[in-house]
Order: sequence, then C-alpha cells, then structure tokens
Amino acid sequence: MRISELARQTALPVATIKFYLREELLPAGTPISKTQSEYDETHVQRLLLIRSLREIAGLPVATIATVLRAVDDEALPLIDLLGITHAAVARPVLPDSGTELADRLLAELGWKLGPRTPLSASLAGVLQALAEQGEAIDAESLGPWIEAARAVAEVEVGHITFDSPRSEAAHRVTLGTVLYGALLSQLRLVAQEAVSLERFKPED
Amino acid sequence: MRISELARQTALPVATIKFYLREELLPAGTPISKTQSEYDETHVQRLLLIRSLREIAGLPVATIATVLRAVDDEALPLIDLLGITHAAVARPVLPDSGTELADRLLAELGWKLGPRTPLSASLAGVLQALAEQGEAIDAESLGPWIEAARAVAEVEVGHITFDSPRSEAAHRVTLGTVLYGALLSQLRLVAQEAVSLERFKPED
Repeated sequence: MRISELARQTALPVATIKFYLREELLPAGTPISKTQSEYDETHVQRLLLIRSLREIAGLPVATIATVLRAVDDEALPLIDLLGITHAAVARPVLPDSGTELADRLLAELGWKLGPRTPLSASLAGVLQALAEQGEAIDAESLGPWIEAARAVAEVEVGHITFDSPRSEAAHRVTLGTVLYGALLSQLRLVAQEAVSLERFKPED
Repeated sequence: MRISELARQTALPVATIKFYLREELLPAGTPISKTQSEYDETHVQRLLLIRSLREIAGLPVATIATVLRAVDDEALPLIDLLGITHAAVARPVLPDSGTELADRLLAELGWKLGPRTPLSASLAGVLQALAEQGEAIDAESLGPWIEAARAVAEVEVGHITFDSPRSEAAHRVTLGTVLYGALLSQLRLVAQEAVSLERFKPED
C-alpha cells in the first residue's frame, strides 16, 4: 500500500508518518519509484503501536524510540524487554523519598525486582504521598490494591508466549504493559462511578 | 507557623507556596504583620493535596483549581465532587472512537454512569486501541481487569464516609481517586516484574 493508505488505516496524518520514518521509529517501505514506497501490514501494526504509546501512555518520542529498539532487538530476552518497557512507563517522583516504605512493603510481600529497575522508586513516591496523608503503608492495609495488581499481573505475564515468533511476543509485551495498564486505570474510574451511583443514588 | 516552616514541612519551595497563594489554590494565612502571615495544619494538608495532584496525577494547575473549588464547596454533594475529580483525571483520547465498544461493554456489565461523565470517552479510547491490536472486547475476555477494577472501586467508595465532617470526606474523595489510582498502577508494574522474574528466572 502507499503512504496515503497507511495514513487512512491508522488515522494518522501523512506528515506524522513521514516524521516517524525520519526518526526511524517506522522501518522504511520498499521503494517502487524515486518518490514512492510500498508499505505492508507490519507498517500498520507498528504505527498502531506507536500511536498507543503516544496517545494512551503519553510517552515522548525519544522514549518510544528506546522501547521500539528493544522490541526489534532479536537478541534481547523478553524479560529484559519487559524491564525496558517498565522503565519507560515508570514515573519516579520525589527522588529518594519513601524508599524505605517501598523496600519494607516489597520485603513483606516477598516480591523481588530486578537490580536496576526504576519501579521501586515510582512505587516509593506514591507510598510516600499516601503516608503523608496519614494512610497506613503495610501489606494488610493495602491488601485490596495489592491483590488486584497481582491478579492482573499474573494474567498479563501468562500471556507472554514463548512459542510464538519473537517479534509477535515482543509486540505483546509492550502492548500488554501499556494498553492493559491504561485499561485497568480507566475501568477503575468507571467502576468507582458505577459503584457510587448504585450506593448513593441521587434523589430525582 | 511561618511560610518558611510550611515550606519545610511540605518540601515545597517558598516561591511555589506564594504562587499557590496568588492563584488561590491555598487559602491566605492570618496576617500577623504587614509582611508576615501565620499558617496552620490545614495549610500543610492542603499543600500536600496540591502536591499529590501535581506530582502523582500530573494535573495542570487550572485543573487542580477546579477540583479544589469543588472540595471547598460545602453545598456540593460528595457524589458530584467524585464526578468532578473523575473529569479531571479522565484522559479522553481519539475523540468519538470506540464509543460503541464502551457502550456495549458497560451494558454487558450493567454499569451505569452519570449523564455528563467524560469517563466513557476515556474508556472508549483505550478499548478502541485494544481492538485495533486484535484484542477481544467483551466482559469475558477482559474479566481479570474488570474484576480487579471493581474490587478496588468497592473498597474505595466504601471508604467515603458520610458521618465525618464534609471537609475531611471531600479531601478523602479526591485523594482516594488520585493517589490510590497511582498506587494500583505502580503496584501492577511491580507485580508484573516480580511475577516475570519468578517465572523466567534468568540463568546466572
């Protein structure tokens, strides 16, 4: 297909697709004339992945480039790809605050993380903010959130398939981390509203 | 306490606190001289709430102002405050896409939302992105995320207390929506990493 068809199928402007080509987020098509190239379904899939990383996860282009290089690196184990994707979406806040809270909670849960992960710092920032608001930070008090997070994580990691082609599995790792994270956040807000309307139905 | 002590207790620069005073996010202190005012614990709490909304939820100052006006409006029912907070943290993407997917899923779940909520549009954006990646969008396929979201929402709404003073309850509604949302997101990433390390322990 031509670039105009690629634009149509992905709902992205041609100028944006050209930008992604220049930035090497999107592999070049097959040249068919001096000014035109032919693209295929892999380009559509790659563009949809880029669009999700930008619009749903709100990641900057430089970060997306890092993630996509990892997706494309056939020699990179999927577990390391997961770590790189985590590093991209983690949001470390208030450096060095709450570290002790996070370490203690993770030890209490028996959850072990990789040695260079930024995830414990992101978790620490949120725990610190909760502690400042007088909330108790321990496995029992935070039980419902811990159980919910663990339950979806088990399913998500279970979906990482090692018998499918690596490129497909890599695509799924990144997608699963980003899109299903956004899904859980949005479903939680929707559920909050649904539950509160059920309980406190306003008088007509 | 003086503004310097307020800065110390909240880890915010004095200039930032003065900005929040000018923008009326923070109520003025009690003047004790031409140039100095006295602040109390309510100012500390308000500043920590503002900091969480900025740093954890990443909300712009104008949005925080809208949320805080709702927190302070004694005449506003808590359920409406929840709706205003939801509108602030919702992330509508790709306008008008996925609306049908969202409506169908909500109908399947029997979840009813308020008439003017932006939440179904946020949910629609994520569902559309998942559908474009070939994921099935129905209550069964998305069961683990739906159950997890509903479980935490039940606990969170259950924590909204109607017998505590309104100002305290209002503070909790906003805090619960924002901070516990961030907690769930971070815990999910941490759990993904812990679960994947357990399952695919890399060879040393």
